Amino acid sequence: MPDRVTAAVLIIGDEILSGRTQDTNLNFIAKYLGTYGVDLAEARVVGDIKEEIIASLNALRGRYDYVITTGGIGPTHDDITADCVAEAFGVALEEHPEIIAMMQSRWQGELNAARRRMARVPVGGSLVRNGVQGPPGFQIGNVFVLAGVPAVMRSMMDDVVPRLRTGAVVISRTVRVEGAGEGVIAEPLAALARANPDLSLGSYPFYGPQGYGSNLVVRGRDGEAVERTVAALIDALAGIGATSITRVDA
Amino acid sequence: MPDRVTAAVLIIGDEILSGRTQDTNLNFIAKYLGTYGVDLAEARVVGDIKEEIIASLNALRGRYDYVITTGGIGPTHDDITADCVAEAFGVALEEHPEIIAMMQSRWQGELNAARRRMARVPVGGSLVRNGVQGPPGFQIGNVFVLAGVPAVMRSMMDDVVPRLRTGAVVISRTVRVEGAGEGVIAEPLAALARANPDLSLGSYPFYGPQGYGSNLVVRGRDGEAVERTVAALIDALAGIGATSITRVDA
Repeated sequence: MPDRVTAAVLIIGDEILSGRTQDTNLNFIAKYLGTYGVDLAEARVVGDIKEEIIASLNALRGRYDYVITTGGIGPTHDDITADCVAEAFGVALEEHPEIIAMMQSRWQGELNAARRRMARVPVGGSLVRNGVQGPPGFQIGNVFVLAGVPAVMRSMMDDVVPRLRTGAVVISRTVRVEGAGEGVIAEPLAALARANPDLSLGSYPFYGPQGYGSNLVVRGRDGEAVERTVAALIDALAGIGATSITRVDA
Repeated sequence: MPDRVTAAVLIIGDEILSGRTQDTNLNFIAKYLGTYGVDLAEARVVGDIKEEIIASLNALRGRYDYVITTGGIGPTHDDITADCVAEAFGVALEEHPEIIAMMQSRWQGELNAARRRMARVPVGGSLVRNGVQGPPGFQIGNVFVLAGVPAVMRSMMDDVVPRLRTGAVVISRTVRVEGAGEGVIAEPLAALARANPDLSLGSYPFYGPQGYGSNLVVRGRDGEAVERTVAALIDALAGIGATSITRVDA
């Protein structure tokens, strides 16, 4: 089996936990990493609380190949991510000359204390380019510190991915079953899962005015094995009484 | 300060981490709990891996007043939440007579092994009503185990909330600043945050074709203190050169 490359996402921000903001960064990062064969293995959401950010970051960076954080890198008092990352790595923060220069050119030299806060990077960190608005993110060790604003985070990911060790891409195929529930799908699906321990087989039921059924997903790094299992799955479901069984992706 | 009631959410499912599914359950639960004064303090997303589900559940249930899990309670082989919860609590799973009776009435007595899987509840657990489709969830100790399908999860929350110790509701007010960035907002905002340690003040910047600025959010359980701080914030921002400063909620 090919080497697995893993990542975790740490979402930092009271606004996600209060329900004020619907997070979409996790889904974007998951899909983006997936196209490079990097598996998102865990995610955590923590509030703007120093001890919790540091504890979560240390747990995740020790456990996975990479950690991507989102949120908390602006100039306001609640933006404490850089401080927490520096403390987690046991290093100081220093003003990064490139950021100071960028900001001086943008604000014609007029840098107040709040703006200077955004120039602070942990010693040993390198910058992550921001193609949209505001200061860059940074990388230190296996941790990438990105903005929380989705458009900014997305642009930063373009500068993160080239730095990652990438893996074999996971191939995912879906079989949509209509008019039959998981109760009758479970047994043939489980038999195929047992026979293919290197693949991941999942069932995602749906119900609504349009009917009911389940989307069955076969995932794995060996494309031929995925195709073979999709074909075997369609065969195995022939007798369950579904109204339709359709591959929904090529 | 009034007693704080805390909760964590544990989202279980490969489909969230692969990016196949955009989670919306966290945001719904956050807002729903908020209306009862229960603070969502942390969330985690883990895959369908037994050891990780158990470790996360044990970390969260020891730390917060309540834990709500979503996902992994169907009849298929990848639905392992009940097994993990039972193991985390060190108890066995047993078929719950009410669920067996419900399912027998629905499927006219025809219960295969997969369907019987859905009837398993940890010893000592009580049921959480499912008003939509499929088997109920369950509660054991301070842990509520809900479905992952959003419509089902939402209906189950109606049976969770009456069982919670509730707290004083957090009042949240927003001031929208246009045409001025966080660099000039930060200082007056930080001064008010320092003067009001019982409140939470946050800044959520926006930029786009319609302009730029930030939504400033004042949150706290003391409504008068929130109102006073919103008024002080609007005063304090008078000199920063914004094109508009508007309360956006009553």
